[in-house]
Amino acid sequence: MRLALEFKGLSYEYVPVHLVREGGTQFSPSYRRLNPQSRVPTLEVAGRALTQSMAIMEWLEETHPDPPLLPADAFGRARVRSLALLLVADVQPLQNLAVTKYLKEVVGAGESALRNWLGEWVGRGMGALEVRLATETDTGLFCHGDRPGLADLCLVAQCYAARRVGVDLGRYPTILRIDARCAELPEVLRAAPERQPDAEG
Amino acid sequence: MRLALEFKGLSYEYVPVHLVREGGTQFSPSYRRLNPQSRVPTLEVAGRALTQSMAIMEWLEETHPDPPLLPADAFGRARVRSLALLLVADVQPLQNLAVTKYLKEVVGAGESALRNWLGEWVGRGMGALEVRLATETDTGLFCHGDRPGLADLCLVAQCYAARRVGVDLGRYPTILRIDARCAELPEVLRAAPERQPDAEG
Repeated sequence: MRLALEFKGLSYEYVPVHLVREGGTQFSPSYRRLNPQSRVPTLEVAGRALTQSMAIMEWLEETHPDPPLLPADAFGRARVRSLALLLVADVQPLQNLAVTKYLKEVVGAGESALRNWLGEWVGRGMGALEVRLATETDTGLFCHGDRPGLADLCLVAQCYAARRVGVDLGRYPTILRIDARCAELPEVLRAAPERQPDAEG
Repeated sequence: MRLALEFKGLSYEYVPVHLVREGGTQFSPSYRRLNPQSRVPTLEVAGRALTQSMAIMEWLEETHPDPPLLPADAFGRARVRSLALLLVADVQPLQNLAVTKYLKEVVGAGESALRNWLGEWVGRGMGALEVRLATETDTGLFCHGDRPGLADLCLVAQCYAARRVGVDLGRYPTILRIDARCAELPEVLRAAPERQPDAEG
């Protein structure tokens, strides 16, 4: 979502929500009022709290159409959304902190079982994404053609998350090529997690 | 997706993909060509294969706007998408067959651990959805106002899935009220899983 705000050239105030400290500040009463699901991100705008990254990005696209994050044609839009959702709905939910915490603390999974779990789901998702990007003719310098869009934002976020949990991305050359290209964009540089005020060493 | 096709009044040919039989027909070479992720559903249209339910529903909405599955205003659209994604991206991925199979066969989770897992994630998601639906003023007879839309289709599918895996929905009165209302709609009756050609007793 921060990436989408940068691409749209919108200014915003970033309020960190620390997911680990104090048992997770996303569970605080004040954050829960904004987001009963206790998940990040939330975008507060005009007194409303918008939740779910994909829904927020679609809202940004509808209210600030320029520069576009989705192609103009319906089939292209369906492709970009499908690539994005492959990551947002099928990979991210299985590797997020809440799930790995539950696996460790409740299921009793050890380090190696946890590593296998992450490798399995990130691997299945990234493997399928790699096949699509490498074989579908609409792929260009970016996920869809030669301009960055919504699927690229999700790809950047997912590559960052996969590296953070120690998943090797070497088997996904097309994904790595697009991620590297994105990493040169000023919007991506500005939104980088390590450049945020709550970044940890 | 089948629900969305029914609401849009579109005719389609239903091709069952059996997720268990023969080790899962979603892994067959012919289905993989359509959907490299080996997930259901896929909508084939004009020689293209559209994947990811949310992306397919957005495509249907763009190409067949009447009757609408999203409200006209941007904040309303963001709310409906957010409610839908709460289920599509945060509940469904944690209770689907691939995940429960992996938990059983690889992690070695027993019956009770599996029941707890499902109760945990379906419970967290449905609990948050219940709070939102019960407290947000845009909720009406359906998730958003008095006409069924995209979030309702996801709610119906999620209630069905939760019952199938034995999760008690009694703690979610608003969700149950909307689900019951949806169950009376002819489109929902026509799309019911037990009315499909591959339904099992």
